[in-house]
Amino acid sequence: MESMMIYMPIALATLGLIYMLVKKSWVMKQDAGDGKMKEISDHIYEGALAFLNAEYKLLAVFVVIVSILLAVVSFIVPTTHWLIVIAFIFGAVFSAFAGNIGMKIATKTNVRTTQAARTSLPNALKVSFGGGTVMGLGVAGLAVLGLTAFFIFFFWFFMGSEWTNTMDMTIVLETLAGFSLGAESIALFARVGGGIYTKAADVGADLVGKVEAGIPEDDPRNPATIADNVGDNVGDVAGMGADLFGSYVATVLAAMVLGNYVIKDMGGSISDAFGGIGPILLPMSIAGVGIIISIIGTMLVKIKSNDAKEAQVMGALNIGNWTSIILVAAACFGLVTWMLPETMQMNFFGEGLQEISSMRVFYATLVGLVVGAVISSVTEYYTGLGKKPILNIVQQSSTGAGTNIIAGLATGMISTFPSVLLFAGAIWASYAFAGFYGVALAASAMMATTAMQLAIDAFGPISDNAGGIAEMSEQEPIVRERTDILDSVGNTTAATGKGFAIASAALTSLALFAAYVTFTGIDGINIFKAPVLAMLFVGGMVPVVFSALAMNAVGKAAMEMVEEVRRQFRDIPGIMEGTGKPEYDKCVAISTEASLKEMMLPGLLTIGFPLAIAFIPMIFGMDPLAIAEMLGGYMAGVTVSGVLWAIFQNNAGGAWDNAKKSFEAGVEINGEMTFKGSEAHKAAVTGDTVGDPFKDTSGPSMNILIKLTCLIGLVIAPILGGHADETGLANNDTNVSIEMIVDSKDLAKATVNYSTIKEGKKTSEVIIFEGTQVEVEKELNNFEASLTNEAGDVIKVIEKVDISKS
Amino acid sequence: MESMMIYMPIALATLGLIYMLVKKSWVMKQDAGDGKMKEISDHIYEGALAFLNAEYKLLAVFVVIVSILLAVVSFIVPTTHWLIVIAFIFGAVFSAFAGNIGMKIATKTNVRTTQAARTSLPNALKVSFGGGTVMGLGVAGLAVLGLTAFFIFFFWFFMGSEWTNTMDMTIVLETLAGFSLGAESIALFARVGGGIYTKAADVGADLVGKVEAGIPEDDPRNPATIADNVGDNVGDVAGMGADLFGSYVATVLAAMVLGNYVIKDMGGSISDAFGGIGPILLPMSIAGVGIIISIIGTMLVKIKSNDAKEAQVMGALNIGNWTSIILVAAACFGLVTWMLPETMQMNFFGEGLQEISSMRVFYATLVGLVVGAVISSVTEYYTGLGKKPILNIVQQSSTGAGTNIIAGLATGMISTFPSVLLFAGAIWASYAFAGFYGVALAASAMMATTAMQLAIDAFGPISDNAGGIAEMSEQEPIVRERTDILDSVGNTTAATGKGFAIASAALTSLALFAAYVTFTGIDGINIFKAPVLAMLFVGGMVPVVFSALAMNAVGKAAMEMVEEVRRQFRDIPGIMEGTGKPEYDKCVAISTEASLKEMMLPGLLTIGFPLAIAFIPMIFGMDPLAIAEMLGGYMAGVTVSGVLWAIFQNNAGGAWDNAKKSFEAGVEINGEMTFKGSEAHKAAVTGDTVGDPFKDTSGPSMNILIKLTCLIGLVIAPILGGHADETGLANNDTNVSIEMIVDSKDLAKATVNYSTIKEGKKTSEVIIFEGTQVEVEKELNNFEASLTNEAGDVIKVIEKVDISKS
Repeated sequence: MESMMIYMPIALATLGLIYMLVKKSWVMKQDAGDGKMKEISDHIYEGALAFLNAEYKLLAVFVVIVSILLAVVSFIVPTTHWLIVIAFIFGAVFSAFAGNIGMKIATKTNVRTTQAARTSLPNALKVSFGGGTVMGLGVAGLAVLGLTAFFIFFFWFFMGSEWTNTMDMTIVLETLAGFSLGAESIALFARVGGGIYTKAADVGADLVGKVEAGIPEDDPRNPATIADNVGDNVGDVAGMGADLFGSYVATVLAAMVLGNYVIKDMGGSISDAFGGIGPILLPMSIAGVGIIISIIGTMLVKIKSNDAKEAQVMGALNIGNWTSIILVAAACFGLVTWMLPETMQMNFFGEGLQEISSMRVFYATLVGLVVGAVISSVTEYYTGLGKKPILNIVQQSSTGAGTNIIAGLATGMISTFPSVLLFAGAIWASYAFAGFYGVALAASAMMATTAMQLAIDAFGPISDNAGGIAEMSEQEPIVRERTDILDSVGNTTAATGKGFAIASAALTSLALFAAYVTFTGIDGINIFKAPVLAMLFVGGMVPVVFSALAMNAVGKAAMEMVEEVRRQFRDIPGIMEGTGKPEYDKCVAISTEASLKEMMLPGLLTIGFPLAIAFIPMIFGMDPLAIAEMLGGYMAGVTVSGVLWAIFQNNAGGAWDNAKKSFEAGVEINGEMTFKGSEAHKAAVTGDTVGDPFKDTSGPSMNILIKLTCLIGLVIAPILGGHADETGLANNDTNVSIEMIVDSKDLAKATVNYSTIKEGKKTSEVIIFEGTQVEVEKELNNFEASLTNEAGDVIKVIEKVDISKS
Repeated sequence: MESMMIYMPIALATLGLIYMLVKKSWVMKQDAGDGKMKEISDHIYEGALAFLNAEYKLLAVFVVIVSILLAVVSFIVPTTHWLIVIAFIFGAVFSAFAGNIGMKIATKTNVRTTQAARTSLPNALKVSFGGGTVMGLGVAGLAVLGLTAFFIFFFWFFMGSEWTNTMDMTIVLETLAGFSLGAESIALFARVGGGIYTKAADVGADLVGKVEAGIPEDDPRNPATIADNVGDNVGDVAGMGADLFGSYVATVLAAMVLGNYVIKDMGGSISDAFGGIGPILLPMSIAGVGIIISIIGTMLVKIKSNDAKEAQVMGALNIGNWTSIILVAAACFGLVTWMLPETMQMNFFGEGLQEISSMRVFYATLVGLVVGAVISSVTEYYTGLGKKPILNIVQQSSTGAGTNIIAGLATGMISTFPSVLLFAGAIWASYAFAGFYGVALAASAMMATTAMQLAIDAFGPISDNAGGIAEMSEQEPIVRERTDILDSVGNTTAATGKGFAIASAALTSLALFAAYVTFTGIDGINIFKAPVLAMLFVGGMVPVVFSALAMNAVGKAAMEMVEEVRRQFRDIPGIMEGTGKPEYDKCVAISTEASLKEMMLPGLLTIGFPLAIAFIPMIFGMDPLAIAEMLGGYMAGVTVSGVLWAIFQNNAGGAWDNAKKSFEAGVEINGEMTFKGSEAHKAAVTGDTVGDPFKDTSGPSMNILIKLTCLIGLVIAPILGGHADETGLANNDTNVSIEMIVDSKDLAKATVNYSTIKEGKKTSEVIIFEGTQVEVEKELNNFEASLTNEAGDVIKVIEKVDISKS
């Protein structure tokens, strides 16, 4: 069984996808309600498709451009294989496909949830969470399927499906990084573009509809209302899905890279039952098992009573979630002890090689699981209704918008304290347990329940939409009440989901950062070197500017929406009376175009800076390793600052939102009950206006920024760094010749096994005499020479030979 | 002359102080106006004194505690000398004294400016700028005087006023760091406490006075109005003064440390006309000359026409400022070529020793001057009236406070882009020219005009106060118009002054950071080590949390003020009619107490974190060098994040302020002229409320946070690091014995020159025979052994001898 382990993750992913299809057909079979409901739902579905199609067109252009660039790079740089282009395209396509599945199922489930809510709350939960499950399994299944399939393919292609050495495996993983880059590129479009879309539509719809025309939210007379509902799906479903798809793939990849590094530290090869690649297979296996565990978790999410409230629904979700987490812990224990050598050697910077038991790797995975759980509690404390920070913001609203804003900003800022200490503790602990491999596995363990997390995340916007459809199709109040319960729980899970997403992005980036160092072969990133320090500063600045650009983008896109809605109110006769039909599609088109246009500049910033840092100094002839160190400083700056700004913005935004919501049930300020419509409430609404782009656009975008930055670094790494490996071959030489002068006349033949980057594994045999010179002139990345006698027995394996660069 | 060069800075500083006294007596001789003006001025003077006295009491306690701690440390740690305690106390006292001079002259000049404004605008400028000049020269003079006096003393004490080696000089400079730490500690109280004071008084006065009671600003019936005016002096005069005093001292100190490092790189000693310490004397000399240049600059600031407007006044300031900068450039050229060896060797990390010509050091100083000038322009672009960012915020005010806030936040965030690129470029360039010595000298050159900068800075609040006194004493409108012109220019210089302050703090911190590495003897700060990376995260978080605490502190202190003002309005009969006299002193007392109380928590955060990072792992037995690297990571995190948040908050705050002010003259929004009192203006006022603590409390506090963090690191450094110097003596040994077995019978005497940390330079002579063993058992930090024959001629100098640790 052990030798087949490499196929296990792919099998489990396929199982997950099959379950997803079953679940999907079950959801689709549910009653989609009456004509009006269907009509609205169809509008949302079509709007979502319109966004997806526009996004895909832009994406196609982007993918073609990047593919050409990557192809050029792989042509010029000997260590980069052209297959990275294929991996990149598939990564992009898989992620886009996962987003497509999620968006479609979400926009089909919403109306079915409304219909189910007409019968009972348990049914409504079942349907909406069913839709979320489809989404979650689609993302997780495709991520694991794609990544492992490409790994198996590259492992075969470059290494003949057999362990050769860590250098070859590095080539495999470097090429595999293309898949991750593709996935994360889609996330840029989906998360940033989606984030701009959802808030532009929201703000645009509100500004004209609620404020100018005085009609309620989700009123079908408002031309932007469909765009607003589409936005929920675009931002919270597709955006979050692409974000976690990217994190999932990148985390597993980084852990594999560091697993390879562990093997290197252990002398370049290990013998285990898994073909000598146990440490590399482990993260994939955890991901595969995580899919099955998530399925079990989703099955546990149900309520029985029709009179259940938010607490019961939340409880049901918690049972599923916690069960998954505990099962993952158990699975990690089993997999780690089974797949890893009992003790390993790991190189700790500055401390040399250390003996690490596999149990310590298990402890590292526990660290990851704890971080995932604790960050949610931290997020909930700073953004939850009835918690102290929210009550304080409510209190400060009584003296006006200014003090409300200050209180909200301060809350977001202070929330970085426990969050960062948690991350810092996690880095420290998981590293202390098992080096950077431990850090990457902590991230992998945390991400193992991605399918479950996404199911919980996605059910929120589905329920939100269901409520909107109930409103627009004028259902009985009980329907809206039931969907409101789900929506309210969804708001909480949205906030904690953002905590999970940033935690995953942070750990992923750290793992990628560590992988980057191993790829470039630099021996660390020394910020006492001024250029490195300068880049740390620049990196720290980028998330701040990115956030500002994203916020401004929302403003600009919203203004275009406002103009269009005003035009329709003016030009379409009878629109306010309900006799004229608003042109929903025009609003959808405007949101779509504006959001995709406005994400260009932040996108360019994200991609342009690391490329500029890498290539401009290269043109001026700077030492590639010095550049690699500078780029590492930049990556660290982006990660540290990005994580801070993500937490700050997400939590400030969430806090303002719930401070505003507090007024709905009434709050006590200075001994007086205060409600909606009061001056304090107006101040709180102002705070929420500021918080909206914070929590839904710029905040979540940070995840993509930091991951994509580190991934671009990882893909550039082979260009910059020498694979300064134990074989001593520098990768910057296009031609390396091996000279092996044989010193014995007993030998008849020399067999030289070597691999070249372009041709893969090769063998060359030379009949030799004393003094024969064996030469291999190729773009080598690995060689092994053995001398055989006339009978063909290997009598001597030469590990080191002279290498002269041509 | 060259050999007397060490006394030059002290002489120039004394000259500066004498000029200050002359200027001061001139200002004091000016007419202080009529009875009512004097009365108000006296209230402000007394209020300022009340704050100073309360601050001094708290300070005294703080200084005593820190002194005891330092004394304990110097008792336990052999490399730390108890004289650091004396240096610390003097640093604190000098800084406090400088603040005292500034505060007193500012509160005496304000009323004289009002009186002068009754005659003409040129006179008003002359008086107010005269007050500023006194302040500037007081700060700069005392800073240079104190620092150089202590250097001369320690140089004599530890080295007998003669060059021995770099290790001894390190001890001198480490002890001198106490002076800098003392100065920066005062800055913490003055800048952070002062920042809280000024905004608490301002907000408190406005909330009750303007909003509740409906009386104008600066109305004498408002009990908080004196506190408000005191606040201007406390925050903008004393706070800014202490901030720059600290930067000035720290920059020069860091440059001296790195100058010593240059000497080390050149083999441990150089021979020049300056006793072999040219590179160490240079930064002090630049500072000394800078004082004289500043005096020249201040003399050029004058206007002739009584009808001058803001532009002419600004022009006069610019002439003075630019002349100073150009003169400093010329002085740097002269001093650098005169005092430095023509070529030096400097160690560049990762690149080894390089030959550096003294001209390259000069170029580095130019980099500093350019940064100082450009950062002001950048700041002015993002915060200046009529500039694009401000017009955009004005535009966004038309759709409400929410969009105004978003636009202001975005402006502050985007302003980090050019600022950080400027800093990063400066780090890179000055390092490329002359290593970290270049970075520190860039900072020194920029800081050379500190006296001039402070004069420009301080004249603003003086004019602001003068306007307030004109209002309160009911002068003719022309008086207020004239002071308003000065005040308006003062607002611009306040913004650019903040830019200068943060640039100085950033460069100072970098220089301190570099000095830190040389003190600890670590060979870099590798963020690929997980604990270092974790501390980089933690360091990045601290400025964010600090800012939040500072903002909240303003809110709390303002609320206490509000309560008091309400009480007085309620309890004092006839207060609104002008017959009852408000109890100004109570309000002053409340502001004073609240601000000092509220600064405790952020202060604790600033001091506590580096101490915890250093000492907690030490208790657990962690390797001191590993701790030193972690602490370095923390320092880098604080610096990078602190600079970002300082720029963000200062510029956002400045932008909101001027967006609000734009409405006073009227602005065009969507084709319509809009004025004060409009909805858009109200939105802009809300933005300004948020911006106030940003730009006057939390933003400027970042300067102190980053400098103090790096200084604490520097003071802890000897405890953590070994002085892993070329002599090979480890500093962690309390007892080192030197064995020198003489192998020749031709020798009659061995003279061993050595120095011990506690006793200073010593000589030991031993009559020797063949086989004699010379032993010196002391807490050594240096030795040199020479063998002399009977005639007393040195025939052999032993540079290396066996050292055995006892």
